[in-house]
Formats: sequence, C-alpha cells, structure tokens
Amino acid sequence: MPTNSHTLIEELDGSLGPGLVRSGADIPQRNWQDAAGIDPHPPAILVMPRSTEQVARCLEICNRHGAAVVVQGGMTGLAGGAHPQGREVAISLERMSGIEEIDTISGTLTALAGTPLAEVQAAAAEAGFFCGIDLGARGSCTIGGNVSTNAGGNQVLRYGMARRNVLGLEVVLADGRVLTSLNKMLKNNAGYDWTQLFIGSEGTLGIVTRVVLGLHPKPRGVQSALCAFASFEDAITVLRRLDDALPGRLIVFEAMWREYMDVTCGPGGMARPFTDEPELVVLLEAAMGDAEGGADLFEETLGGFLEEGLLVDALIARSENDRARFWSYREAVYEFRRILPKGSHFDISIPLSRLAEAVAMLRTRTAALGPDAAFIVFGHVADSNIHVSVRDPAYDAAMGARFEEMVYGIVAELGGSISAEHGIGVLKRPHLGKSRSAPEIEVMRQIKQTLDPGNILNPGRVLPRGERV
Amino acid sequence: MPTNSHTLIEELDGSLGPGLVRSGADIPQRNWQDAAGIDPHPPAILVMPRSTEQVARCLEICNRHGAAVVVQGGMTGLAGGAHPQGREVAISLERMSGIEEIDTISGTLTALAGTPLAEVQAAAAEAGFFCGIDLGARGSCTIGGNVSTNAGGNQVLRYGMARRNVLGLEVVLADGRVLTSLNKMLKNNAGYDWTQLFIGSEGTLGIVTRVVLGLHPKPRGVQSALCAFASFEDAITVLRRLDDALPGRLIVFEAMWREYMDVTCGPGGMARPFTDEPELVVLLEAAMGDAEGGADLFEETLGGFLEEGLLVDALIARSENDRARFWSYREAVYEFRRILPKGSHFDISIPLSRLAEAVAMLRTRTAALGPDAAFIVFGHVADSNIHVSVRDPAYDAAMGARFEEMVYGIVAELGGSISAEHGIGVLKRPHLGKSRSAPEIEVMRQIKQTLDPGNILNPGRVLPRGERV
Repeated sequence: MPTNSHTLIEELDGSLGPGLVRSGADIPQRNWQDAAGIDPHPPAILVMPRSTEQVARCLEICNRHGAAVVVQGGMTGLAGGAHPQGREVAISLERMSGIEEIDTISGTLTALAGTPLAEVQAAAAEAGFFCGIDLGARGSCTIGGNVSTNAGGNQVLRYGMARRNVLGLEVVLADGRVLTSLNKMLKNNAGYDWTQLFIGSEGTLGIVTRVVLGLHPKPRGVQSALCAFASFEDAITVLRRLDDALPGRLIVFEAMWREYMDVTCGPGGMARPFTDEPELVVLLEAAMGDAEGGADLFEETLGGFLEEGLLVDALIARSENDRARFWSYREAVYEFRRILPKGSHFDISIPLSRLAEAVAMLRTRTAALGPDAAFIVFGHVADSNIHVSVRDPAYDAAMGARFEEMVYGIVAELGGSISAEHGIGVLKRPHLGKSRSAPEIEVMRQIKQTLDPGNILNPGRVLPRGERV
Repeated sequence: MPTNSHTLIEELDGSLGPGLVRSGADIPQRNWQDAAGIDPHPPAILVMPRSTEQVARCLEICNRHGAAVVVQGGMTGLAGGAHPQGREVAISLERMSGIEEIDTISGTLTALAGTPLAEVQAAAAEAGFFCGIDLGARGSCTIGGNVSTNAGGNQVLRYGMARRNVLGLEVVLADGRVLTSLNKMLKNNAGYDWTQLFIGSEGTLGIVTRVVLGLHPKPRGVQSALCAFASFEDAITVLRRLDDALPGRLIVFEAMWREYMDVTCGPGGMARPFTDEPELVVLLEAAMGDAEGGADLFEETLGGFLEEGLLVDALIARSENDRARFWSYREAVYEFRRILPKGSHFDISIPLSRLAEAVAMLRTRTAALGPDAAFIVFGHVADSNIHVSVRDPAYDAAMGARFEEMVYGIVAELGGSISAEHGIGVLKRPHLGKSRSAPEIEVMRQIKQTLDPGNILNPGRVLPRGERV
C-alpha cells in the first residue's frame, strides 16, 4: 500500500505524461469491478499505459513505493482477479490495443495485450485463418487477459486452452524488467520456456503486454447436430467413436444434462427438442472440410450410432437457422441468472471416468440439502469440464457455504479440480487446498516470492496475502 | 561435489538398501555416456532408486552433502544433458519402469518415469489408443526423459511436443520434496501450473518420477505419399491447402531438400523416386479415418494440386511396402554418419516465413566456406524445425567452430532458435545467448536458484555452472 499516495501519483504522472494517470472521482466505474459479482470498489489510482515501456516504468515506481497493483483487462473475469481491493493502483491495459502483425506464411498473429478477443478473431479470419481461443465474453475480454487466465471456452476440445495457442509473449516483471520472446515457432527448446509461468497465473507474476498466437486453418464445412443420449456412458462412447470415424474434425461437444434442459424448456421457455426427456443432450459440431461428401459422411456416421442404439435421437442442422436454434439451447444459460432463484456457481473439472458418478452424487446430495434446492449441470465434457449451479429460493450466505461444501467435497472425492477454466482469483482462493497439496502451494509461493518479492502484483489473488508472500 | 564420497556412498547405501548404489568399477558403461558423442566419463556413484520415495531420500542426502547429481534415463539425448561430468552422482531411473494405469474412459495413461517410450506406445495401442509422442529412439528413450526434454519427433504437427501430451506429473525437488499432480483432466486452472516448469528444463529443476499422458484416438486409414515440389513456397501452399481440404487429418509432413536427396540417392544409395531432381521432396501422411472413400479423397486432393501445378509429381503408397519404401528415404539419415565425412549437426527452428531464405543462405555461405564443404537439410518443416549438417573431408575443431558460427548466425539473423527439439544440455550452453536475451537468462537463473539453491541438479546443463547458480 502506498505510504504517500500523493507522491506516488505525482511520480506516475511525471513519468507517464498527461492523461494516463487518474485518481479519485476521475476513475470511471468500469475500473471498479470485474464480472465476479463482488461489490464495486474504486482503485486509489488508475494508470492506462500506452506502451510496454510505460508499463515497465509504472511497475518500477509502484514496486519502489511498495504500492499494490491490480491488473485490468476486459473486466470479464469471474473469480475477482481484476477486482480492486483496498487502495490498489489499477493498471489497465485498455490503451494498449491493436494487432501488430499477421505472418500468413508462419501462421502467427502478434497483438498488444489489451486487444479485445473479437478483434483478434476478426483479424485472423480476414487473413484466412482461425483463432483457437473463443469464449462468450469475446467482445469485451482481451487477449492479454485470456493468456493470463489460460482461458478455455467452447472449442478447447479441438484447439486447447489459451496455453496451447500461445507461441510467444512479452511480459513486464514486478520490478519493471521486460522479458521478450516473440517466438513464432512451434518448436523452441532453447532453455526454460519461461512463458509458461505467466500463462494462467492471473497477473500475479507479471503483466503480459504482447502475445504471439499460432493460428489455425478456418474450420470449413461445419456440420451441427443436437443429439439425445440415454446415458453419459453412451455419450462418451460416441465421442470416442467419432474420433475414429472423423479424426480431427470434431470441434464442439457441449453437454446439457436433464435438469438443464428442464429449466431451458420450462414454462415460457424454449420448445423441447426431443419428444422424450433424455439424460443428456449434446450439441455436436464437426468441421468436415471443403471436399465433397462431408455432409453425407456426417449424417451417415450419426445414422450408424442411431442404428446401434448409442444415440436415442439426433437432429441435424439443415440451415444456419437450425444451427442458431441448436446453439440457443446452450446459450440459454445466460438467461438463467434472470429466471432462476439465487445460488452458487461452480466451474469444476472431474476426470471423465468419474463424471457420471459426479452427476449422480450431485443429484443425491442436492436432494438431501432441502426440498427446494435444485441444480443444473452442463459443460464442455470432452474436456472434463462441467459448470454446476446449485440454487434455492431461500438462498443466503450460510446456504452458499453448504453448497460449496457439497460441490467441493465431490471434487475432492473424485480427484477433480475446483477451477477448470475460470481461475482462482479471490473467490476460490480459500479453496485452493482442496485441489492442491501443501507442497504444491509452497512451490507456488516460492515462485511468487522469486518474481515478485514485494508482493505488489495482484496481491491476495490465487495465493493468500500475508506479511511474507 | 561430495567432500567425502565414502561417507556419501555409505549414507546412500544405508538409506536405499543393498544393490541400488554402486561405485567405481561396478558402474556399467551404459551410465558413462549419453548419445551426444562426448568422450565416456564414469560417474563417481550410481544410484538406481526403485520408488519416488527412494529418489526423494537420495536427493535429500545429496543436497545435504552438496553432491552434484546427473539424472539419467534412456541415455539417448543429443545435447549431453545426461552425460556425467566430474565426480557426479548419477541417478538412473532405469529401475522405475512400468505402466501404472490406463484409464480408458478418461483416455489417460500413467507411467513411471523410467518406462521406455516404446512400452508406453504399445500399452496405449493395446488399450485402443495412441501415444502422441514418437521419435526414432523410442526403443531406448524413457517417458521421463521425453518429458524432461520436451521431446519432439515426427508427429509434432498433429500431436504437439511432449508438453502438449502431459496432463500430470510427479516430481522430486532438489531438497527431496515431492510434488504430485497426477491430473487426468484437460482443464485445470487451480493455481499456477507448476508442471510446466519441469517440462523441457532437462532435469535441472527436479527429477520427474511419474507422468500422466493424455492419449489420442488411433490414426486410422493412414495414407502416405511422396511429393516433389519445385519450391518451398509451393510446399507451404500445399500444407495450408491440405489443412483446408482435410482438416485435422495431416499427421506427417517431412521435408528433404535437394542436397539431402543427392546424398540418399548417390552412388550405392537408393533409387531416385522422381525422374527429375526437385527442390524439395516431402513425405506426407494423413489419417483419413474409418469411413469409406478416405483413400479416394486423399488421391483426388493431391491430384488437384498436380493439376494446379503446385506439385511437380507425387507417388501414393498402394501397400505397406510402398509406405516403408517412402519412409526409408527419410530414415536414410541414420546412415549418413557412416557414409558422409565428419561434420557439425544442428537442430534449429526458423519461422516458416523465413525458412526458404535460411536454406538459400545455407547454400551461399556453405559454398563460401571452401570447395569441399557440403550441407544437407531436412526436417519437420510444418513445425518450423530443420536439421542441418555441414560437413567437410578435412573437418576439425576449428572448422566446426566456423560451421557453428555460420549456422547460428543465420538463426540469429532470421529470429530462429538454436535448439528446436534436442535441448541445450552442455553442448549448446555456450550458444544460449544467441536465442535468448540477457533478461530471459537471468529469469532462468532465478528460477533455478529458487528450486535448486545448492545447484546440485544437472549442474552446468542449460545454464552455466558457477559459484552462484
């Protein structure tokens, strides 16, 4: 915390020049909160650097003053990582935006960290490529935030998490040192790959200022189907068989369990896609390519599964309208906060071999919580990732604690993770020990201590605040 | 270095039990050298732990004595990382071998670090899956070594480097602490992913004792072709077009330049596959899947490129025999050491957009080295990785230094890497600064200092030895 914030503001202002440092009432509400649902809280100072060099100068000054810094991108995080606390200096990357280069032969894109993901995606598409990172917040979230949180999303099955799409990074360390490896190559074993440390560490080890992404070929001939399964086991069998029949072409496999469909297709909701109510509805997409016969092969393959009884029913999209309608079942979740009672929301991973068990446990244990408690579960199951909401009309903090205990208990019993893709931030920090052992957390603390000995970068996120880091 | 190696041997022997600690003439020659071509050198002590707990006890003892340790797996490394120096204690993982679990629903395999890669591959295949890591040394190299060196190989294009195939690790730190994250899930953002630090750091930060791999579906309906290109640009165009036409199906794209084919098909060598002598011959494989028509689609696609003039000529394998013959051109390289004059060998990466330039520079600059200097170049070009050998009948150390200067000069000029897949070890350590900046190397040193403050683990590999790490 700055001992003298007036001196700090003056020094920052003098170093960065006019208009880039604000304080008090001049700080827009945009910088008061991220998307985690915590009460808005203004930072003491807001800095909006325009260059890596300015980020470096700003961190050098804050580090010298022992001033805590919160790093801000698109403010779409769900774990409170970018949410200001105490009298923090917010460093927002919003003025560092833009695509710097697309190398169409190497298939790479270089962007400043504050560039919105949607802009990165559009630039890749315009150059004839495809960006492997995609998530619902694409319009607001930034590529730097995506990298810092190792973002997931709907196409991880095919393109991996953010980590797999990153080839190079530029990062500013807490003391202002700049690390640059704007690597464009798939293979580079020249010493430790330090970039890995900054992917997914939620801004606690350094500030990502530039990103080099490897681009992918555009998915072509995309076919979509909505599939009804009698059991999770059948869905997994079909997932594996699709890999054999259509290798490398599956891009989406989004599962919605019975309870999810009941809410989506409840009173005033959407029409039920199937006449019966299957255990699981899966939205499935495959990029069949430019060559002729792709659509036929997709249909024949699903037809085979139907004949074998692995699929209960399947609808194949015949038009972009159909495809949009299929996606609207999956996207109905964005309405749930409005139409459902309050509750707790979880982003967990469970090994695929235990996932059916996890859902069965959720059913039994939610029922045991009380007559009005209800849950929904859906997610990117091919990646082991499910999103769970547990709700109750009488929801309060005590009930929230019981819901957490139930869900994290299942995670711990089945060898899962308390955070599949949203990260730890502040909201899940008290639970880190449920997914990580004491020696693991100790090593995380050692790494933090090494790279940020003053504990100025996003303090209290991921790891506990404390006298010593 | 142990101050009193007799005391050290006694303590190791007492802790690990009989038969696991050897010294002097009892140390087999197998443990005297790796595959880097350095003169054999016996370790002072050889320890062959049977369990993670024994590895931990052994490191705790060595750390307390300040005894330098060299970590050994299959001894197939090409950079000298496992090659003993001075009076080191060799810790060989050879007795820690075996597949512990295959989870067929999650699609994961858990193995002890000393398990040979070929055994991992066979176990995955028997369970109906495919291991994404493959390289020529598969019979001898170990999965722990593959992870520690972030091994590449022939199928990186499709399955990535070792890093992308690792889901979980168990690692013993220099002081004997055991870090365990036998994660089976594609997504896990619960805190820093510390496993990334131990992948590719060549045993300098910890000893990998267990590995969880994500498995892939078996490639089915594999089609092979040998293609002749008039230019590198045409080859890259075909590579991109194949991604569009046959998304996700390309698994091999191995390029052999004109000079490589001249050696392979020289006097007493193999028959030239094409009547003319193309700039580039590419061995290309695609997994077309189980569905009918895969072979036809493969042939039609290549036929289209021929008609367009992107391909000069193409041979399609009609039998396993044909396929083996195509591969024999690529595997001829294992004969080169025998039939060619001595020389220097390089494993470099160059951004794809500069690769044609790199080969042109190699041609001009090798010619300028002298009338008998010659080079060959081949490699996994889709991954930016080429292997270069520069040779001369009068090869000696001074000439080797000139060859290095030439090749690493091109790497530096074109923004490449001095090590694509083989690692740094001891052989490339003096050149690390050609691919990494001073701040990058300083951060590597800080990480090493944090995790191995006594500098006992593989000292002098990757980073310089020294009083302070």
